[in-house]
Amino acid sequence: MADTVHASPRNEPPEKVGAKSISEMAGRETPLIRNYWYVAAFSEEITRVPMRRTILDRDIVFYRKEDGTPVALQNRCAHRSYPLHKGTVSGDRIVCGYHGFEYGADGQCAHVPSLPAAPRAIKVQPFPLIEDGPLVWIWMGDPAEPDQSRMVYQDWCSKPGWTHVKGYMYMKANYLGLHENLLDLSHFPFLHGQVLGRPEHAAAKPKVRVEGDVVFSGVMHRDVGMAPNYVKATGIKPPFDRESAHAIPCPGIHLGQAILTDSSDPPQTHIRHIVHIMTPETLKTTHYFWAIARDKAIDDPAVDKESLMFADKAFMEDKVALEEIEEVIARDKRPDFREKIISTDEGAITLLRAFARMAAREAGGE
Amino acid sequence: MADTVHASPRNEPPEKVGAKSISEMAGRETPLIRNYWYVAAFSEEITRVPMRRTILDRDIVFYRKEDGTPVALQNRCAHRSYPLHKGTVSGDRIVCGYHGFEYGADGQCAHVPSLPAAPRAIKVQPFPLIEDGPLVWIWMGDPAEPDQSRMVYQDWCSKPGWTHVKGYMYMKANYLGLHENLLDLSHFPFLHGQVLGRPEHAAAKPKVRVEGDVVFSGVMHRDVGMAPNYVKATGIKPPFDRESAHAIPCPGIHLGQAILTDSSDPPQTHIRHIVHIMTPETLKTTHYFWAIARDKAIDDPAVDKESLMFADKAFMEDKVALEEIEEVIARDKRPDFREKIISTDEGAITLLRAFARMAAREAGGE
Amino acid sequence: MADTVHASPRNEPPEKVGAKSISEMAGRETPLIRNYWYVAAFSEEITRVPMRRTILDRDIVFYRKEDGTPVALQNRCAHRSYPLHKGTVSGDRIVCGYHGFEYGADGQCAHVPSLPAAPRAIKVQPFPLIEDGPLVWIWMGDPAEPDQSRMVYQDWCSKPGWTHVKGYMYMKANYLGLHENLLDLSHFPFLHGQVLGRPEHAAAKPKVRVEGDVVFSGVMHRDVGMAPNYVKATGIKPPFDRESAHAIPCPGIHLGQAILTDSSDPPQTHIRHIVHIMTPETLKTTHYFWAIARDKAIDDPAVDKESLMFADKAFMEDKVALEEIEEVIARDKRPDFREKIISTDEGAITLLRAFARMAAREAGGE
Repeated sequence: MADTVHASPRNEPPEKVGAKSISEMAGRETPLIRNYWYVAAFSEEITRVPMRRTILDRDIVFYRKEDGTPVALQNRCAHRSYPLHKGTVSGDRIVCGYHGFEYGADGQCAHVPSLPAAPRAIKVQPFPLIEDGPLVWIWMGDPAEPDQSRMVYQDWCSKPGWTHVKGYMYMKANYLGLHENLLDLSHFPFLHGQVLGRPEHAAAKPKVRVEGDVVFSGVMHRDVGMAPNYVKATGIKPPFDRESAHAIPCPGIHLGQAILTDSSDPPQTHIRHIVHIMTPETLKTTHYFWAIARDKAIDDPAVDKESLMFADKAFMEDKVALEEIEEVIARDKRPDFREKIISTDEGAITLLRAFARMAAREAGGE
Repeated sequence: MADTVHASPRNEPPEKVGAKSISEMAGRETPLIRNYWYVAAFSEEITRVPMRRTILDRDIVFYRKEDGTPVALQNRCAHRSYPLHKGTVSGDRIVCGYHGFEYGADGQCAHVPSLPAAPRAIKVQPFPLIEDGPLVWIWMGDPAEPDQSRMVYQDWCSKPGWTHVKGYMYMKANYLGLHENLLDLSHFPFLHGQVLGRPEHAAAKPKVRVEGDVVFSGVMHRDVGMAPNYVKATGIKPPFDRESAHAIPCPGIHLGQAILTDSSDPPQTHIRHIVHIMTPETLKTTHYFWAIARDKAIDDPAVDKESLMFADKAFMEDKVALEEIEEVIARDKRPDFREKIISTDEGAITLLRAFARMAAREAGGE
Repeated sequence: MADTVHASPRNEPPEKVGAKSISEMAGRETPLIRNYWYVAAFSEEITRVPMRRTILDRDIVFYRKEDGTPVALQNRCAHRSYPLHKGTVSGDRIVCGYHGFEYGADGQCAHVPSLPAAPRAIKVQPFPLIEDGPLVWIWMGDPAEPDQSRMVYQDWCSKPGWTHVKGYMYMKANYLGLHENLLDLSHFPFLHGQVLGRPEHAAAKPKVRVEGDVVFSGVMHRDVGMAPNYVKATGIKPPFDRESAHAIPCPGIHLGQAILTDSSDPPQTHIRHIVHIMTPETLKTTHYFWAIARDKAIDDPAVDKESLMFADKAFMEDKVALEEIEEVIARDKRPDFREKIISTDEGAITLLRAFARMAAREAGGE
C-alpha cells in the first residue's frame, strides 16, 4: 500500500505516502460501534414534554419522570407503531397518542385502556441513561450489560470552580471525519485562516500514542496566541507555550485540552477543556455537541462570548467542510478510490485503526 | 407466536397477546391486490381536460368522451413515452402532445399524422371504468376479464331521498393502516379526544364475522351522543342505541354504518352511511376518498356542515397519525419487529388475514 | 420484433411497426460512451475562480492558468476528499481549501505545506481539454490516449465573417431523447405549434445515411417560412427551399444546418448552423448547450434577438417534454415496455444503433 518517494528535492528523508486501508481502518461503511456510551442530549433538552431523537440509527423518545430522572425508550409503540413522542407524559409513564397504551420507564407496558391488565408481552426497548452535569449519556449497546466501566465522566462539567459554554450543530456527515479533523492541526491555516491561521500549524506533527483503545495525541507550540479576553481576565503572562492535547477514549467523545504554560516566575499552568462530542445519528449524519470549559475567569461574560464566537466560526467551518466532503464521496462512483495518508495524519490513522478494532470485536461478538 | 400472560393482577382471564404474522396477515410489503374494483376519482374530477392520477402503481390519464363516458388509458404514448395528459382531447380521442398520435377510448391508436393509416400495433392499455353516482370505479386487474360481479354498487349515492357530503385526502401511508384504524374504536378517546372522546370506546370489542372474503364488524353502544344538528333536524328521540357496523367487501372500500335506534314509541331506526374509500396509489401512498350519506334532513345545510367539519377533523387526525406511523416504520431497520395484537384488534386481524388470502390467490394465479 | 400491419384503409403499403430493441439500440440504461470529446463549458465559464461541473458522472473542477489555458481536474483532493473547487487558484495551481495541498495542471501534487517535498504518489486525475472558440471540449475517455482524431472542430465558431448566439439549459433527462427529438421533424406542429407549426412537418420523412459511425439525416421543404428579420436583413428572395440537414459525428454533438436556396437569379444559397451540444451529466441529466451561427447579417442585433427568442421558446419546449418523458419512464414499473417505431423514426433508430455499437466497442475494450 505504501508508496515510497525516492526523489526529494531538499534531500530530506522521503515522505512515505500510504492510502487508507478498508480492512485496517474504520471508514464510512464501518458499522456504528454500539457498546460505548454516547451523549444523547444536553440535560435541558429532556423535559416532561416528549422529545424525539435518532441515535445510532434508532428512533428514540426522551422524557423525564416526576422525580426528574431522564428516560429513553424506543419511539415506536409495540401495538401499532405510533411514535410515542406524539403522546403525553403522565406521572412516570408515557401515554401513546393512538390507543392510550402506557409505558413505564422500564419500557414495560403498564396499562392498556381496553384490558383489565397490561400484558407482559407488550413492551418497548428502554435505553440506559446517565446524567452527568449538562450531558445525558445513553447506552445503545448490548441491552444485557450496559458497561458502566466504559462511561467517561466529565469532571469539568459539574466540579465547583469550573464553568463552560456549549453548543450543538447537526452535521450531514459521518462522525469519523470530525475525529480526523480534530486530530489534525495542519488544516488550521487553510480552513480556519481567519480564526486560527498560524503558519506553524501547517507542519504540526503531533506525538501520538495508544493505551488500550484510547488514542492520545499532543503537539507543543511556542509563543502562540490565545483568546485575548481570557489572557486579560486571567493575568496569564505572555509569551507562553501551548500544548494541544487530545484523548479519544471512545467513539463518541473527543477530549481536547489547551495547556498553557506562561512566563510568570514561577511559570503558571492553565488548562482549558475543548470537548467535542460526536453522536452518530446514522452513518451519514452526526449530532455534534461541544463544550469549552475553564477554571479561570469563570464569571467573566466576555470570555464566554469569546469562546462562543470562536466555536460558532471555527466549528461551523469544520462542519461545512465535512458536509462538502460527504457529498463529494457520495457522488464519486469509483469503487477503488482510497484517500492518501501523509505523516501529519498519524493521529487520525491511529484512531481509525483503533475504531476498526472496536468494530471488529463487536462484529465478532465481544 | 402467541404469548400467554399468566399473571393478571385482577385475576381475570389473561389477555393473549400475539404478534402480526408475515405469512398469515397482509402487511406493508404485501403486493397490491389488483382483481377488484377501486374508486379512481370523484365523478366531477373527470372532464374533457385530461387528468393524471397514479393508481395501483400505474400512471393513468382520465378524460370524458363527447357523450360524457369516462375513459382511462395508460398515461404513456406507445411511441415516445410522452404523458398523454399533457395532450388534448379531440372528439372521443386523446391527442398526444408530442407527435400528435391519437388514441381512442379503447386505447387503440386511431391516427398517426405522418402515416396514411394508424398501425394496429400502436396502442395503450385501456382500463374499464364504471360510473356509479359520484364515484368512478376502475378495474386494474386481469385485462381479459373485468369481473363485474365484484363491483360494489353504492345505492346511497344515487338513490332518491338520499344525500351525502364527501371529500378527499392524499395520504402518505399504506392503505392497510386505514382499514385497521377504522375497524378499531378503541383509539377514539386518544387520537380523537376532542371529537369522539367517549371513554367506553377504549374497551369496545366489536363482534367480527367473515362471509367468504367479506369481513363484518359491529359494536353496540348505549346512550351515546350523535351529531346535534342531525338529531334536531330528524327528531330522533334520545336516548338511543348506536350500532357501529362495518363491512369490507374488497380492498378498496370500507363501508361504515351508524345504526341508531331511538326512544320513540315504537322505536325508530335511522341509518347513516360513513363510507371510506382507500385506493392505493403505491404501497406507501393512498388516495383517501370518503362520503357520509343520510336519508333524513336531506335538505338541511347545517347537517351537511356538521358532517364536513367532523370529517375534516377526525379523518385528518387519522391521516396524520397513519403518516407518522409510515415514517416510523420506514426509519426502523430492525427486520424482526412485529406489531403486537390484543383482543380489540380482532376485526383488523381478521381483515388482514382475508387480504392475505386474496393476495396469495392472485400470486398463485386465481 | 416487427409487427406488420396488413389492413390499411387506403390500400397503401402497410406501415411496419417495430419496437425498440434493448440489444441493438442505445437506451437509457446504456453506459455513457466515454471515448469521444464532449463540450464541458462555454469558454467564458472557465476563469481564474474554480468552477465545478459533473460530466459523464465525474465531479470535475475547472480553472485557467495564468496564461489562460483551461484546466480540468478531478474535483476531490487525494488526501481528504475536499472538493478542490472550494479552494483557490494560485499561479497555475489550485490550492485545496482544507490542508493547502497544491495541484498543478497535470494533476500532480506540487506542494504539501507540512512536507519538504510533495510526494509523487499524491495526484488527482487531469482531463485533457481543447478550447475551440467559445467551446471548451473535454476528454473523459481512456486517459492513456486522448484521441485527437475524434475532435470535431467547429469552424463556424471562430471563422471570420461568422457570428453566433448561444445558450445553456440544464435538462433532467437522458441525452439520447434529445438526439431523437432533433432528428424528428414530425413533432414540430404538436410540441412547437406556435413556433414551428407547419402541417407538412408531421409527415416529414428524412433521408438517412450512415458513414462509419456518423449518422446523416436530411429533409427538403418547399416554400417554408424563415425568421423574418433574417430574411429582411440578408435580402433572401422568397420563396425558397429549405433543407434541414443533420450530422451526428459523436454522442455529444448534433450538427444541424438550415440550407436555404432562394428565388434570386441565379439562386443564392444560405447556410445557418443550428448546433446542439448534449453533454451527459449522468444517465438521467444532461448539459444542453446550443448555438445558432450565421455568416449573413452578422452585425444585426434584430437577427440575434430573433434567434435567441426562437431558441428560448422551442428548445425549452423540447427540454420540458423530455423531462416529462423521463419522469413517466421512471414511474413505469413494467419491465417489458418497448417504445414503438414508425417510419419517421428512421433517423433516430439509425443513430441509436450507431451509439449501441460505440457503447459495445467500449464495453469490449476498444
